[in-house]
Amino acid sequence: MTAARGFASDNYAGVHSEVLAAIEAANVDHAVSYGADEWTARVEERFREHFGEQARAFLVFNGTAANVVALRALAQPYEAVVCAETAHLNVDECGAPEFIAGMKTLPVATPDGKLTPDLVAPRLIRFGDEHAVQPKVISITQSTEVGTLYQPEEIAALAEQAHAHGMLLHVDGSRLANAAASLGTSLRAITTDAGADAVSFGGTKNGLLLGEAVVLLRPELGERMPFLRKQSMQLASKMRFVAAQFEALLADDLWLRSAAHANAMATRLAAAVAKVPGVRVTQAVEANGVFAILPPGVAQRLQAGWRFYTWNESTGEVRWMCSWDTRPEDVDGFAAAVAEEAGLALRAAG
Amino acid sequence: MTAARGFASDNYAGVHSEVLAAIEAANVDHAVSYGADEWTARVEERFREHFGEQARAFLVFNGTAANVVALRALAQPYEAVVCAETAHLNVDECGAPEFIAGMKTLPVATPDGKLTPDLVAPRLIRFGDEHAVQPKVISITQSTEVGTLYQPEEIAALAEQAHAHGMLLHVDGSRLANAAASLGTSLRAITTDAGADAVSFGGTKNGLLLGEAVVLLRPELGERMPFLRKQSMQLASKMRFVAAQFEALLADDLWLRSAAHANAMATRLAAAVAKVPGVRVTQAVEANGVFAILPPGVAQRLQAGWRFYTWNESTGEVRWMCSWDTRPEDVDGFAAAVAEEAGLALRAAG
Amino acid sequence: MTAARGFASDNYAGVHSEVLAAIEAANVDHAVSYGADEWTARVEERFREHFGEQARAFLVFNGTAANVVALRALAQPYEAVVCAETAHLNVDECGAPEFIAGMKTLPVATPDGKLTPDLVAPRLIRFGDEHAVQPKVISITQSTEVGTLYQPEEIAALAEQAHAHGMLLHVDGSRLANAAASLGTSLRAITTDAGADAVSFGGTKNGLLLGEAVVLLRPELGERMPFLRKQSMQLASKMRFVAAQFEALLADDLWLRSAAHANAMATRLAAAVAKVPGVRVTQAVEANGVFAILPPGVAQRLQAGWRFYTWNESTGEVRWMCSWDTRPEDVDGFAAAVAEEAGLALRAAG
Amino acid sequence: MTAARGFASDNYAGVHSEVLAAIEAANVDHAVSYGADEWTARVEERFREHFGEQARAFLVFNGTAANVVALRALAQPYEAVVCAETAHLNVDECGAPEFIAGMKTLPVATPDGKLTPDLVAPRLIRFGDEHAVQPKVISITQSTEVGTLYQPEEIAALAEQAHAHGMLLHVDGSRLANAAASLGTSLRAITTDAGADAVSFGGTKNGLLLGEAVVLLRPELGERMPFLRKQSMQLASKMRFVAAQFEALLADDLWLRSAAHANAMATRLAAAVAKVPGVRVTQAVEANGVFAILPPGVAQRLQAGWRFYTWNESTGEVRWMCSWDTRPEDVDGFAAAVAEEAGLALRAAG
Repeated sequence: MTAARGFASDNYAGVHSEVLAAIEAANVDHAVSYGADEWTARVEERFREHFGEQARAFLVFNGTAANVVALRALAQPYEAVVCAETAHLNVDECGAPEFIAGMKTLPVATPDGKLTPDLVAPRLIRFGDEHAVQPKVISITQSTEVGTLYQPEEIAALAEQAHAHGMLLHVDGSRLANAAASLGTSLRAITTDAGADAVSFGGTKNGLLLGEAVVLLRPELGERMPFLRKQSMQLASKMRFVAAQFEALLADDLWLRSAAHANAMATRLAAAVAKVPGVRVTQAVEANGVFAILPPGVAQRLQAGWRFYTWNESTGEVRWMCSWDTRPEDVDGFAAAVAEEAGLALRAAG
Repeated sequence: MTAARGFASDNYAGVHSEVLAAIEAANVDHAVSYGADEWTARVEERFREHFGEQARAFLVFNGTAANVVALRALAQPYEAVVCAETAHLNVDECGAPEFIAGMKTLPVATPDGKLTPDLVAPRLIRFGDEHAVQPKVISITQSTEVGTLYQPEEIAALAEQAHAHGMLLHVDGSRLANAAASLGTSLRAITTDAGADAVSFGGTKNGLLLGEAVVLLRPELGERMPFLRKQSMQLASKMRFVAAQFEALLADDLWLRSAAHANAMATRLAAAVAKVPGVRVTQAVEANGVFAILPPGVAQRLQAGWRFYTWNESTGEVRWMCSWDTRPEDVDGFAAAVAEEAGLALRAAG
Repeated sequence: MTAARGFASDNYAGVHSEVLAAIEAANVDHAVSYGADEWTARVEERFREHFGEQARAFLVFNGTAANVVALRALAQPYEAVVCAETAHLNVDECGAPEFIAGMKTLPVATPDGKLTPDLVAPRLIRFGDEHAVQPKVISITQSTEVGTLYQPEEIAALAEQAHAHGMLLHVDGSRLANAAASLGTSLRAITTDAGADAVSFGGTKNGLLLGEAVVLLRPELGERMPFLRKQSMQLASKMRFVAAQFEALLADDLWLRSAAHANAMATRLAAAVAKVPGVRVTQAVEANGVFAILPPGVAQRLQAGWRFYTWNESTGEVRWMCSWDTRPEDVDGFAAAVAEEAGLALRAAG
Repeated sequence: MTAARGFASDNYAGVHSEVLAAIEAANVDHAVSYGADEWTARVEERFREHFGEQARAFLVFNGTAANVVALRALAQPYEAVVCAETAHLNVDECGAPEFIAGMKTLPVATPDGKLTPDLVAPRLIRFGDEHAVQPKVISITQSTEVGTLYQPEEIAALAEQAHAHGMLLHVDGSRLANAAASLGTSLRAITTDAGADAVSFGGTKNGLLLGEAVVLLRPELGERMPFLRKQSMQLASKMRFVAAQFEALLADDLWLRSAAHANAMATRLAAAVAKVPGVRVTQAVEANGVFAILPPGVAQRLQAGWRFYTWNESTGEVRWMCSWDTRPEDVDGFAAAVAEEAGLALRAAG
């Protein structure tokens, strides 16, 4: 019997009640389909408030699509995207960037899921050489797949590097809200104001039923987008129900409240397990994820009662994600279980 | 000021209250993502009840995706799909079948949106000729884009033709429920039992918030599907909320009640306008759509108060779709408006 | 035992001796690969002489590739190409335009393989509608697949129509030399000067061992081309040997001599068979192909001794292609055989 | 003024006289196009002699295409190919494997361009996980891009590893002849007999004007190939001239003589420069390439008189390729120049 609320993924969580209320409120009579409705118009305005006047938001169904449709808007198929080896678009999208966008990824090994100009530089070669894919996009994930964060100036440095090479900066912001909440910044401070050109802005992991947004920060990038989105099979017919969710998320700081809560739960969890002998937290806990290495056998025993994933089969590193609905008692109960199992393991080994 | 409920499209309608209730009911605690949840397990069983034991259902986001992912499962990129010229996959998917599935469509002109073996036959040529795309799929739409229906035996004849050529039969069933409701058959009578190999089963137009299903009717077709769906960017993370909708639709004849109602409203509308001098209903009204040609100028004047689309710019033919939430008073009010405007036009012309 | 030189296709012919001599002459020591050689530099200059100063030529391997790489240069995957139903790119490229360029073809039925603005017009719809592929290229074949020709002013009219819609005109010139020879014009008179934006210029059918050229007539179209060609797997390493062939073809009117000869042979054949009772020449013989309908059974008996193709299985129409190496005695011998077999057939039927 | 025969690439060399003679000999009258000719029939038999009875050879235009068409035959777009980071298909094909075959490469860092089961193993993960591309092909280059060789048993070990995981082994044999010549084996000893499933067999670098072959070693892999080749724009119309070249190459040990000569020239060059103070040969010289690091500035000065490439901009490592037409005096002259320039550099530095 597993716990009702575990630490497997923030997409195991459900729909926030304010979001569900917004869906219900939108469910009146008829609305024009495919985004020519009032909810979509309003949510586009919300995106401009959060990302700047030049921002154009295009709602899509899921995170893989947000990344791939963004890449299609930013680059041609013979161009390439530099990303961390751990990037979702490199390892968790079943080759959709290659298959749909036709683009090669140029993965970079990192210690913490974060690109730096120095790490990126060796990939920025062979410009103009027709035999090689042409680097066109640097894609960072904020917060990263391993729970770390880019500081605004780190993003700005990558944007500058990209632009200096005629490239563009894409932010996979499937957890952008968690980053902004943790950094205490606005959403635009870590995107638009840092020089980013496009953002995949996540909604699903932050309490929506379903919905992500491609936010283009340069007007010229948007011209082809309606066609790219439709052809990529990402245009919702009853768009009002996706838009209404984002409106709930963005209008009244729900995005911030939910993300901050998830972050706080991760901090609470990290603090609790860091004290447990035998447990090593492996990455800085800067957003809503905790990565750790446990004594042998502990993860497996914990998984009988709590859902979470092994992140790295070879090292045994585990990932614990907190979400908008994680309760302090969930964290405390789990931390106690970790302490107990680790203690048993150490005594058995001792 | 347009009417609250018009006749533009069945995707202008909202979410059925039973579907919304199912979403709410599914919104408890955590569930495994990407379809390994109990709702998805149950809904897969529902699909087997409706389409036969061998049916495997894969939920996707929208109708374009259902068609394209189904085509990817059925054929290779150098193979082709024979369809009616009016088929959604031929004219309304922004080239996604070509771009994503790599497949050429071989469109066939029809009087009524329906393929027949005789119409298809001239397309079934050049098998084995490497210079030509190889016909592999016959795709029919049931009910068709122009509101007509295939009888079960008409489908069986096309399935037989397909199979005799080593081909497969795909049913774009974005409105399959309307077809079954109108014919008084089960869903399987016009798919599995008629020899179809795959179905795009529509949910959105029949009262879901969002959701379609690719239903594969031959076990061997499903092996590659998990990867094809994910790579096609159609795998929902919080799948339980898509599955729960389909469960509501399929478990308790909601699909039938909603579709039958929409059909009845179309019949009511057709009956009313057929009596109006100057109005010509152009297609048999067999499902939930009415196609008509009106006296010049009438459509434009009606559109000031009621939403609907001109189907054919050159002939002026209009399309009026009814949906699960169309009320008799909506129909009657609109029919009266048609009669009034047509009368004015005839008098002005007279 | 079939005749040494038949009428199946102009690609059954071999390599012109002047072309082979050019290959031999180029076979000295080392040359920089991939086109940075002196032969390629010279042939690019030849193309500018023939197509105008703004012309940029990119050599590729075959005709399918010339068309597809040209389309990639002209349009995005969600855009579409309007062409005759009989166009090579619509029926004889195994779906490469769809699979590689991601583009949908919008085929137009024609009586004679030729588009006209009136025939094209119904396809130029739904601009700006994200659900539909966007017409971007009109592609004509000159001379056509059925041996007919566009007059320069007919091409200009289509170019004007294309440009008026923000579209581009592509000429599939796999047999452009035959067209220019027949019309008595320069190559540029029926391309550049008529407003064309890109040409697939054929070499193989006019006496090369192998080689076609994509000739882009607007400078801005060429920027992406080196990458598009390489990624489309059409960049020859020992490019000098493709370039040397084109140099031989273009430098000293070989293109014109060879094409004019092939045309003359077709005219001779058409004149001879037109007099034969029971034989009906079905298309105007304006280039190097003759299309005809014969008495029943005649084609099959002729094929025992002479190679040629049945063009249309349902009508029995046959195609006879003449090439740069067709000899008058080949024509006369074949025409005599046609007369004899047709006479036998008529007597048998009589 | 650069030397007539340098060391830039084996594709800077011209056409072997026996190959040219074969082209000339094939240039008689008409032949059926697209491969239904006698030369192609004979060359297919030659491939069976060299690769075993089950081998099916499909001729294509260039090496990029051979690799990509082979991959299309071996795997689906959501599957992936494990290869060395230095593999041509990973770095020199402008993303064609991703764009055309839709496949992701999983590159592996190697010291010497060679995969081993241990290096490959970490990439063979996540089988059955729909979020990840599925490893399906191991691709090795024989001889490698850095001039090294796989021993037959090393290939067998990788084939065994591949098959144990339901995968296939592809050999990029753009220089397979050099490998066989160096190892003193037959072609099949390092492909078919070692368990390989498909080979890209190179002709261009070994003295052809143009031409590569995809050799499929399992009968079932060939069924889709005619369509895959045509759709990939790799079907030559005047195929006899590609086939005749391969016939010359394979019939009378020309492949072996040419490759052995190129290898011998590389050995001669390596032996000569290895004695030069300041010159370090960086890779084992096992085929026809020599890799070396020179004193600073030496490469640049040598390049004024001799063509060759810098292989690694950051280390200054250079690549010297020998070809079938490299003469001993070319090698000796170049080695003398290396010695002279290196000596000057050392004295200047000294």
